[in-house]
Amino acid sequence: MMDLRSVFSGKRVLVAGGLGFIGSNLARRLVELGADVLIVDALIPAYGGNPFNIAGIENRVRVNIADVRNESVINHLVQGQDFLFNLVGQVSHTDSMQDPYTDMETNCRAQIALLEACRRWNPEIKIAYAGTRQVYGRPRYLPVDEHHLVEPVDINGVHKIAAEWYHRIYHRVHGLRTVALRLTNTYGPRMRVKDSRHGFIGWWIHQVVRGREIEIFGTGQQIRDFNYVDDVVEALLLAASHPDTDGQVYNLGGDEPISLAELARLLVDVNGGGSYRLVPFPADRQRIDIGDYYGDYSRIRAQLGWRPKVPLREGLARTIAFYREFGDRYW
Amino acid sequence: MMDLRSVFSGKRVLVAGGLGFIGSNLARRLVELGADVLIVDALIPAYGGNPFNIAGIENRVRVNIADVRNESVINHLVQGQDFLFNLVGQVSHTDSMQDPYTDMETNCRAQIALLEACRRWNPEIKIAYAGTRQVYGRPRYLPVDEHHLVEPVDINGVHKIAAEWYHRIYHRVHGLRTVALRLTNTYGPRMRVKDSRHGFIGWWIHQVVRGREIEIFGTGQQIRDFNYVDDVVEALLLAASHPDTDGQVYNLGGDEPISLAELARLLVDVNGGGSYRLVPFPADRQRIDIGDYYGDYSRIRAQLGWRPKVPLREGLARTIAFYREFGDRYW
Repeated sequence: MMDLRSVFSGKRVLVAGGLGFIGSNLARRLVELGADVLIVDALIPAYGGNPFNIAGIENRVRVNIADVRNESVINHLVQGQDFLFNLVGQVSHTDSMQDPYTDMETNCRAQIALLEACRRWNPEIKIAYAGTRQVYGRPRYLPVDEHHLVEPVDINGVHKIAAEWYHRIYHRVHGLRTVALRLTNTYGPRMRVKDSRHGFIGWWIHQVVRGREIEIFGTGQQIRDFNYVDDVVEALLLAASHPDTDGQVYNLGGDEPISLAELARLLVDVNGGGSYRLVPFPADRQRIDIGDYYGDYSRIRAQLGWRPKVPLREGLARTIAFYREFGDRYW
Repeated sequence: MMDLRSVFSGKRVLVAGGLGFIGSNLARRLVELGADVLIVDALIPAYGGNPFNIAGIENRVRVNIADVRNESVINHLVQGQDFLFNLVGQVSHTDSMQDPYTDMETNCRAQIALLEACRRWNPEIKIAYAGTRQVYGRPRYLPVDEHHLVEPVDINGVHKIAAEWYHRIYHRVHGLRTVALRLTNTYGPRMRVKDSRHGFIGWWIHQVVRGREIEIFGTGQQIRDFNYVDDVVEALLLAASHPDTDGQVYNLGGDEPISLAELARLLVDVNGGGSYRLVPFPADRQRIDIGDYYGDYSRIRAQLGWRPKVPLREGLARTIAFYREFGDRYW
């Protein structure tokens, strides 16, 4: 295993989307590791950014509120940085179907702006991009590995794979040092739980913590896998640390694939109370549902030694504890 | 085989990009079949549009010069149409690497605008999209069929597969009647031959017709397949005609895969004179070259009865004859 402290201590690290869920958890870890962290975030309403996400480290990071699509801004911010963690973007599947233009702007254009800035102003920077397993669409086999056909089922998925490919193309054509991960469902403290736009699990946690009934769409038999956010942060750090990850892509994945109904039961159990019920699938979600999914992460395990460490029950307990304490900053 | 006349006679057909290479050849054929043709084209400089492409049919079609990204315009133009042939877009690989923003605008945004217009204003229209085999990137096996992994090697390829996916997603989610073809190298009268931006073959034809030496990049051993434009037009018409093509994608392909050096020899031979030489690959092209490619078109052959009819030698002869006569409108 890499000694992450020796890699990141004293290094200049730009976290784009650093006030969001994964970005802020990553920034916290980087501060622990002794990095010099610069956060850029546009705080676009209804995305994941929340200034409270850096409560406690606000004096140990620099925060630059800006939209990376502003070329002169991002051209300036990338200069002198050793690492860029790219967590920028719109992640709502349903929003992307309502308004494909905005999804294109906030995903494709923002990604091009980041990569063009690096190409012109900091071609030596190492870039780790947080992509998504949704690029695979409806799985043709399980678990899904990196050889699986990509065929997104919604506009957001199209733009997410476009963003991932931009990174690989900028590596091959321009020599940028980029690596991409394909995250599966990620959960944990600081996730957006205000509504179900960013996925059901944050919404469920919100409901269960506030003593409301969880609504499961459909039969509840769909299988998913989950990663606790600290494990995802570790994967991003490892991917950025290894020089031989340039141009590569790695699945993440969870060790405990679970049906949604079982997950709801587990949440209620960990919470020490609550209830759930099955409700019909809303038409707009049914049409972009992908059925069962769980990922094969053997590639990153073999090459970088990553594997998830936080069991689902433990991760859910930590998450519920967080929202019990700080939920009023997130509802 | 479909009786194309019975399908298209008297029908209202919108050809988007209809002053371009394939669009104008398609418009000509539709006029022959008795269709009521409306062309929309933005005539963006350095793209393929050329008013001379409809010489001889200009009084039998309507032409509306406009950019389909203008929503109020395209919302109006799609209304009342039975078919939309979608040949809109930027096709230069090298331009896309120089200016990825413009490629995104002219490919992604324009495609979203077309599909949103149909969804809101004409949800019954049948849409045939001209995609490209470049979505496959560097082939992992030959011939390449539709099961091959998509992994574009340049920005234009990313946006082309995004456009194709938009069509399939709008079918699945919104019920639009869309079909996509993945064209291989297409050549014939009315192609852009001013420079090599849109591919080498137009440029080579330009050179050989004007008595100049053809320059082959690299060893000349790369294999490609080719379709004469009339065969591609036939494929588009067939795909649009069959109701069971909704949501489908089909490769086109040529029967005579040939190395670039052999193709140059054939061109010189058909032309009755000329010369070629090998030159080193320019770096910007080398980096996005895909090696050998030829396509497997057995799916469209089985389902729609399509196969290419014009042999390569015959197609090249017709093309050379066209540019001998009208080349001054294209140089």
